[in-house]
Amino acid sequence: MNAIKDSVHGHVRLDPAATELIDTPAFQRLRHVKQLSTVRLVYPSANHTRFEHSLGVYHLARGALDGLDLDPDTAAHVRAAALLHDAGHGPYGHQTEGIIRRRTGRDHDDVGWLLTDADREVCQVLERNGLDPVRVTELIAGEGGVGTLVSGELDVDRMDYLVRDAHHTGVPYGTVDTGRLVNELRLLGDGSDDPADAELVLAEGNVATAESLLLARSLMNAVVYRHHVSRVAGAMLERACERYLDRTGTDVEAFRRMADHDLLVAFREHAPDLGRRIEHRDLYKRAVWVGLSEVPAGTVDADHDAELAAEREIAERAGVDPGAVVVDVPSRPGLKESGSAVVVDGITQRLSDASELVAGIRAAERSRWRLGVYCPGDHVDAVRGAARDVLGLRIAG
Amino acid sequence: MNAIKDSVHGHVRLDPAATELIDTPAFQRLRHVKQLSTVRLVYPSANHTRFEHSLGVYHLARGALDGLDLDPDTAAHVRAAALLHDAGHGPYGHQTEGIIRRRTGRDHDDVGWLLTDADREVCQVLERNGLDPVRVTELIAGEGGVGTLVSGELDVDRMDYLVRDAHHTGVPYGTVDTGRLVNELRLLGDGSDDPADAELVLAEGNVATAESLLLARSLMNAVVYRHHVSRVAGAMLERACERYLDRTGTDVEAFRRMADHDLLVAFREHAPDLGRRIEHRDLYKRAVWVGLSEVPAGTVDADHDAELAAEREIAERAGVDPGAVVVDVPSRPGLKESGSAVVVDGITQRLSDASELVAGIRAAERSRWRLGVYCPGDHVDAVRGAARDVLGLRIAG
Amino acid sequence: MNAIKDSVHGHVRLDPAATELIDTPAFQRLRHVKQLSTVRLVYPSANHTRFEHSLGVYHLARGALDGLDLDPDTAAHVRAAALLHDAGHGPYGHQTEGIIRRRTGRDHDDVGWLLTDADREVCQVLERNGLDPVRVTELIAGEGGVGTLVSGELDVDRMDYLVRDAHHTGVPYGTVDTGRLVNELRLLGDGSDDPADAELVLAEGNVATAESLLLARSLMNAVVYRHHVSRVAGAMLERACERYLDRTGTDVEAFRRMADHDLLVAFREHAPDLGRRIEHRDLYKRAVWVGLSEVPAGTVDADHDAELAAEREIAERAGVDPGAVVVDVPSRPGLKESGSAVVVDGITQRLSDASELVAGIRAAERSRWRLGVYCPGDHVDAVRGAARDVLGLRIAG
Amino acid sequence: MNAIKDSVHGHVRLDPAATELIDTPAFQRLRHVKQLSTVRLVYPSANHTRFEHSLGVYHLARGALDGLDLDPDTAAHVRAAALLHDAGHGPYGHQTEGIIRRRTGRDHDDVGWLLTDADREVCQVLERNGLDPVRVTELIAGEGGVGTLVSGELDVDRMDYLVRDAHHTGVPYGTVDTGRLVNELRLLGDGSDDPADAELVLAEGNVATAESLLLARSLMNAVVYRHHVSRVAGAMLERACERYLDRTGTDVEAFRRMADHDLLVAFREHAPDLGRRIEHRDLYKRAVWVGLSEVPAGTVDADHDAELAAEREIAERAGVDPGAVVVDVPSRPGLKESGSAVVVDGITQRLSDASELVAGIRAAERSRWRLGVYCPGDHVDAVRGAARDVLGLRIAG
Repeated sequence: MNAIKDSVHGHVRLDPAATELIDTPAFQRLRHVKQLSTVRLVYPSANHTRFEHSLGVYHLARGALDGLDLDPDTAAHVRAAALLHDAGHGPYGHQTEGIIRRRTGRDHDDVGWLLTDADREVCQVLERNGLDPVRVTELIAGEGGVGTLVSGELDVDRMDYLVRDAHHTGVPYGTVDTGRLVNELRLLGDGSDDPADAELVLAEGNVATAESLLLARSLMNAVVYRHHVSRVAGAMLERACERYLDRTGTDVEAFRRMADHDLLVAFREHAPDLGRRIEHRDLYKRAVWVGLSEVPAGTVDADHDAELAAEREIAERAGVDPGAVVVDVPSRPGLKESGSAVVVDGITQRLSDASELVAGIRAAERSRWRLGVYCPGDHVDAVRGAARDVLGLRIAG
Repeated sequence: MNAIKDSVHGHVRLDPAATELIDTPAFQRLRHVKQLSTVRLVYPSANHTRFEHSLGVYHLARGALDGLDLDPDTAAHVRAAALLHDAGHGPYGHQTEGIIRRRTGRDHDDVGWLLTDADREVCQVLERNGLDPVRVTELIAGEGGVGTLVSGELDVDRMDYLVRDAHHTGVPYGTVDTGRLVNELRLLGDGSDDPADAELVLAEGNVATAESLLLARSLMNAVVYRHHVSRVAGAMLERACERYLDRTGTDVEAFRRMADHDLLVAFREHAPDLGRRIEHRDLYKRAVWVGLSEVPAGTVDADHDAELAAEREIAERAGVDPGAVVVDVPSRPGLKESGSAVVVDGITQRLSDASELVAGIRAAERSRWRLGVYCPGDHVDAVRGAARDVLGLRIAG
Repeated sequence: MNAIKDSVHGHVRLDPAATELIDTPAFQRLRHVKQLSTVRLVYPSANHTRFEHSLGVYHLARGALDGLDLDPDTAAHVRAAALLHDAGHGPYGHQTEGIIRRRTGRDHDDVGWLLTDADREVCQVLERNGLDPVRVTELIAGEGGVGTLVSGELDVDRMDYLVRDAHHTGVPYGTVDTGRLVNELRLLGDGSDDPADAELVLAEGNVATAESLLLARSLMNAVVYRHHVSRVAGAMLERACERYLDRTGTDVEAFRRMADHDLLVAFREHAPDLGRRIEHRDLYKRAVWVGLSEVPAGTVDADHDAELAAEREIAERAGVDPGAVVVDVPSRPGLKESGSAVVVDGITQRLSDASELVAGIRAAERSRWRLGVYCPGDHVDAVRGAARDVLGLRIAG
Repeated sequence: MNAIKDSVHGHVRLDPAATELIDTPAFQRLRHVKQLSTVRLVYPSANHTRFEHSLGVYHLARGALDGLDLDPDTAAHVRAAALLHDAGHGPYGHQTEGIIRRRTGRDHDDVGWLLTDADREVCQVLERNGLDPVRVTELIAGEGGVGTLVSGELDVDRMDYLVRDAHHTGVPYGTVDTGRLVNELRLLGDGSDDPADAELVLAEGNVATAESLLLARSLMNAVVYRHHVSRVAGAMLERACERYLDRTGTDVEAFRRMADHDLLVAFREHAPDLGRRIEHRDLYKRAVWVGLSEVPAGTVDADHDAELAAEREIAERAGVDPGAVVVDVPSRPGLKESGSAVVVDGITQRLSDASELVAGIRAAERSRWRLGVYCPGDHVDAVRGAARDVLGLRIAG
């Protein structure tokens, strides 16, 4: 068996299908898609990519499968799905997911592309190794009980990225106990033999283990994932992508297959100011940074077109260049992990029922939500006033 | 400047007073007092001692003092207090604190002993280095604003033990960001020049930093500090100490100066069964393990004599040897860290006001509280029934 | 003081000059130059950049300066030099150093560019902070005793990259004890007051400390820096750069200011086959991989033009495309670290005199030297035979 | 399967036999035997024990067995041998090995005791799990090809202690790549089917891997294992044990079953001065510390009785108390690891033939050998002169 050295998990041993899959261009492309997009502008060591993260997820999936006692064929499909789970990401990962979704209706884990001509090589490798591409894509989408190991409340994706992001940012909050998590997963069947009908749970005695995932995620949100500098840069990047797509008429499927560096170079010509600012970390400043209680519900829930329209109107009122204002409204705070299943006194419960902590974390997530409006530093005052009026914010001008 | 290599913080540089203090017998004794007493029976790597912990606390205090801008004389006293803060611990640290308190009225940070004949050497070293022993003991007790750096909600003691215990148990939950914590501490004065009147706070932007301390503590409580195996062994150890003291008439001051190994050997003669069981990890089992809602308030708040009386009565009713039952009632759950001071929007707040998480953690701590009754494995059923009746527990027999 | 979180050293505190220097485009560009160029094709987590490495070198320099007792002005210049020491690197760092040297006569630490128009911003920041750009460039070049702290046998550059490369590759051999190294450095004067005339040495009792640097370097050479896959990819990258420069007539100064991603995109048009192969890790294979004893001295010491001529001749004889053969002849093995100065029994000695290990390491380095000839996998046999003849190798065809 | 959390390897999963073996008093005793005896007086965090080390060795053995394709019965015996390999150690491990050997003729890995009455419980557990105690003891002694996995040049014992000692001392030199070492082990048969006749080797491409073990050992020797403070304390401990044994007539078999703390307490009565000095780190000083070239061969190779006689004579000539001088003559430097087998170009070679480094390391080990004579600080001059004359040292008085 082949092995690749990983900075987080040590030696990752690869089965023959994985060895072949890694050599496809579709997988090699993940070397050029950063895991944390613009977070590196805050934590400069955070240059890790979806490539090694995918290897890590594969490794943890193998560890979990050791204890789950599935038939070898299902296990082989799960391993392939774990390895390929992020292959559908566009450049800069989650940062371009909204753009792709709005223009194609597809999320990154909707990897129907595995079945299309363009990535035929991945399909061929799967089939050559006796694996069904359709079944792999369903697992990536989290379908079936065992699919939640790849994408679900207790998935190995989350376990890997928390520890990997901690390792590379230097922020320790993400260091969950992957060994324990993986050892304590169980698939509880419904009496039938079909693993698709089983449920993935943490065994008895692991409420604190499940809480630790949630807490790690919440602290990493506060300090890393939603750091305001990263959010400013991310919002600028999204606008730069939209301008590039609009000006060049690039096909979204082609866009989705680009690498991070393709974008940076493309911006030189098609979004030169934003591109230069991102590349040299000469970022917009926050004209507005307000919590949920200051924002009308209509603004929180507005769609993307309304956001863009607001940007234009704010710019006009503030008397600045139409492209110089970015409105950044995150979705309402949620906590997928709070639905994790844990066994307590022999009964499977949702973590939100089993743990007194979940409500507190939910409240903390809400209190940390922020709407941002960003612009060049010397327009901050004008933009703040205009944004207050246009977005109906309950703030002083 | 001298340096000692520490497995957690790397090189710890020592000022001249520290170098001399470390060489006193009172400080060398800490090499023989384990940091986590009976936790090593669950996490076998947890053999670290109060000696290296004290060095770590000294090291973090120095780091914090770098940014606090105190006069050199106060800083020197704080450093000495940080180094000596645990010198008042008896054998097995917190495990014997209750015994010593009940028999002397003194806690481990009540280090009046520094001023007594028996440890005159420490006083002499302090005085030779221009330090006032009385002032050092006051700082160890957490008196004054700067004293809370040694013992308080945001003290460096807690920061060190969380990361150290994580390093040695292998449980990652304690890995707080000591670098950030130490960098972000501020002493906010009340306008006067006296550092004793100032308050230790975390600077603006550190709510999540403060929460991380609280969360780390709460998870470590659940998984390490209050692990049931460690609690069973700890309760047995406490009883063995009491028997040793009662049978031999050993003076409590002498007891307090013993090392862990002195106790283990003393048990051979004076508490042979408990001693052998602790040494070979052949522990009592849990006859009862119940939460707050199953226990009458009178039982939760009973004093130690009532606890011992209950043990005897349970043993009698269950028909077992009077020494074969241990009742272990922890104090009501508290959360000292929730009082940490953090600056939010320019105003100093308690963490419990600034963070939505605190209430959740408080509730989680309450839900994890357990009363335990322990005895040899073959008496579990009889003891459970008797304990239910004697302690008034709301459980099935 | 500002602080940046680094995954290796924790919080790196920045003085005001450093804070400003980091914001210049010339320094921000280092975010886009990988520390280990093509090593990431072997160790996929090795995506760290010259940006965070430069911060790390600055941090270690500050630590060393704490103990060296220099005047504040010299110390400030050394800190700036440590921070800027790699700003002269071209894209992919050492991988393009040969190209730039051959076409300009300048090494990466010959940073006269600091004084030129193009990077005037760096000069302006230095001058605004009371620092002399000429003196900074001299320190970067390792001039003067204290300059060897930046570039010399015991420089902080080496200390940082060994631990950083270990952290990111996952190969532990580079984990030297930076704390001890930095604490044990001394500047031994020659009696004059000029720090330029002093010599940087490791204090008494540190022969093993110095050996550890040498051993770490030697093992990292074997397993990481000169891994054959990285060398194949690196040699291909060098040829792709040369083709790009030759075909487009790009100015070398402009080339030197490019970022890694600029090159990858430029290859798409100007070196498409090599570019695609590097991007997708579809690399040439080794037709020849032989040690010093199999290679005539003339071949080992041939200049670059002779190497290129040999490539063309081998290709012709093998009947393959002229661009499909790469000859890769490393320079003769050396061991800069063996000249480190250590104090033994009060006398400053070269490590090569003080340590019995140096000769062994030198021999090991010689035995690991390899000449490589690479080509597409299906031409390996033909190219091997042709290379044997053209290069005069003592191998079977 | 049961799992125990280890600070070095994470979760160590235990097979049923291991779970039972760990519960025997003979194994639990290892909780009370420190891995590095007196090294903790130099590196205060080094309090780890033979208990967790034994778990680590078991864990690495399991990892290596995964790749070795042995029959399940042999593998089960090897796992048990790995777990029990140190159960024969006396208190303070290697520090008392010489005493036990001289008085019984047995080394710590000569665990015939497994078969005796006193440790019958271990035998019973083995037999209950279908394991042959005799075969286990042979494997512990390193007999047969597969026995060298437990005790030999490439044994998992060494791999564990190097990384564990690095983790606990904070000295990074021991961090070898256990993942790679374990993955790359092979058992090369001699054509027969008997694993006892096979040879344990490192697979092709691992000369540097083997060298890394040797280098780690050599640097750890210099900086940790043979640190002079640890050697002084160790020599004092040995003398204290001898006095205790001689004065009390304690049976050596009983001595061998003692724990570290039993000795410390026993010294209070039977070797009070040495005991107090060890406990409070108030150690003897070096009167003599000289290399091989200063010591006559007869002195290097003298037996223990001659050493003791020399001590008495030095004390008499120096006019000090007969017990106040300790002569410490280590055995001649050796390098067991240099015999490691590695495959190079398809042929199994000794590392000393395959690596140019071995000769250098051998020379370095010779150059670091030191004979020491220790005594209370105020007698250093008198003892130095007397020792020179008695031992024939080539030094100035």
